[in-house]
Amino acid sequence: MLPELSPGLQALRDHTEHVLGQRLPPFSSAITPLRATMHHALLGGGKRLRPMLTYATGKALGASLMQLDTPACAVEIIHAYSLVHDDLPAMDDDELRRGQPTTHIVYGEAMAILAGDALQALAFEVLAGDPALQVPPATRLLMLRCLGQACGAQGMAGGQVMDLKATGRTLDEAELEAMHSMKTGALIRTAVHLGGLAASATEPELLALDRYASALGLAFQIRDDLLDVEAATEVLGKTAGKDAAQSKPTFPSVLGLATSRQRLEQLTQTALVTLDELDADTALLAELAHYAVSRER
Amino acid sequence: MLPELSPGLQALRDHTEHVLGQRLPPFSSAITPLRATMHHALLGGGKRLRPMLTYATGKALGASLMQLDTPACAVEIIHAYSLVHDDLPAMDDDELRRGQPTTHIVYGEAMAILAGDALQALAFEVLAGDPALQVPPATRLLMLRCLGQACGAQGMAGGQVMDLKATGRTLDEAELEAMHSMKTGALIRTAVHLGGLAASATEPELLALDRYASALGLAFQIRDDLLDVEAATEVLGKTAGKDAAQSKPTFPSVLGLATSRQRLEQLTQTALVTLDELDADTALLAELAHYAVSRER
Repeated sequence: MLPELSPGLQALRDHTEHVLGQRLPPFSSAITPLRATMHHALLGGGKRLRPMLTYATGKALGASLMQLDTPACAVEIIHAYSLVHDDLPAMDDDELRRGQPTTHIVYGEAMAILAGDALQALAFEVLAGDPALQVPPATRLLMLRCLGQACGAQGMAGGQVMDLKATGRTLDEAELEAMHSMKTGALIRTAVHLGGLAASATEPELLALDRYASALGLAFQIRDDLLDVEAATEVLGKTAGKDAAQSKPTFPSVLGLATSRQRLEQLTQTALVTLDELDADTALLAELAHYAVSRER
Repeated sequence: MLPELSPGLQALRDHTEHVLGQRLPPFSSAITPLRATMHHALLGGGKRLRPMLTYATGKALGASLMQLDTPACAVEIIHAYSLVHDDLPAMDDDELRRGQPTTHIVYGEAMAILAGDALQALAFEVLAGDPALQVPPATRLLMLRCLGQACGAQGMAGGQVMDLKATGRTLDEAELEAMHSMKTGALIRTAVHLGGLAASATEPELLALDRYASALGLAFQIRDDLLDVEAATEVLGKTAGKDAAQSKPTFPSVLGLATSRQRLEQLTQTALVTLDELDADTALLAELAHYAVSRER
């Protein structure tokens, strides 16, 4: 199998693994199981798409990696917590993630709920106080508001509610897109927005970046739905065919396979064309757009 | 039964009810169940001890109520989320809270998990951006860091892990205090600290306030343990006798009833004496200390 990531993206992913571990707090011996659970959730692999987006955005606009560590980690910590809670028996009831048993399978439900809760708090704590980030306090507050909105009722949590409600129902394309724009799109857009803010992006740059991120986020989700239909569980690292088994509306089930692939192609083009509006070296952002839609897991 | 709250505290509690509802975000019709669940969790009554502490602290140091609304709401929103998650079947498995069925009993486990998650995000979003709070951005960031630490692995979530691990085991007094200082103490101290920061308290004032809050927080917990032994379920509004039924270590089980009551009295005195160090009208803070240790539920 060909490597999925370009050398530039692979370097960003490796860097992410390195800095994420540094953000876990010191743990007293009394809460060893919480430490183990949070490690499993945060450092057990993963595509690291969101931090790569933060880094690629910030680097394109001239920020240093170190300046971007804080928002990149905050966004990925939120993503890790959301996966732990999404996999719980009361939610998607998933036993496999990244080729490994899910967090509640290994550590039990109580510890999975608490590790998720603690990771969410950690993301905000890191973003509020991590000294690696050198921006005016007002910029940090903008980042915190953006992250809060992306996580809450109008973002990820609200999207997950729509997802749960949609199971077994028929959605039209607009409803499906609205659900994903909250469930996964909001955090992907935040990953890009925070990279832009850390690099002191101008308002027009932030707007172009947001169009790029919206297109990429939706494309990423369509690819996810297609993989669930096309790929085998061992390649995917999570249970394949689960959407259909759970009667979840997906892009293939709503639009059909051919139209879904077409839509994926259109969105990729939108993302790439939008990058041309930026007067910057956007090679890594373009590579990420290609990766998001061609990945095999 | 005599009213438990002085007129001054009752006014703060009424004010809290009023402003909390205003902090819930607008909800699209697609996520109506999430709105209902968050309302139930946040606006279904409660002692409102933490926001009263924020208001009483800030008012003592000259801040306006409006200036204190933001931190008071943020802290109570965190408290509300923590109760929803603590009551889940995988955690304390409680069916009764504030005399009402717990959130997951009414709305199901998935919605309870998501409403808790969305409330945690909302607390940080409110604290990061609510315009009622007029402080320098750097002060807001201090508040956000403090709240993040109070919620995470070194605070509430870590304390809850210690609590789960302690079930069926014997703890000594120091271990029991360490657990409670994380599980409930951290957020109570944060409620006071944020009130101080919103009122531009000096460093010596913040230190004195923290000693007051530490003593009050521990006293509050001892009272909680005593009520679980002494009170009837209908007065308590939650299932009484649950600690013993679940073999949870409590102050009465570790120290005995008489010593627990003595310790409660000592801590109240510590809290009250500490208030004398402040050159301020601390009447409401003193009333809160009395309330925390004499409440009947």
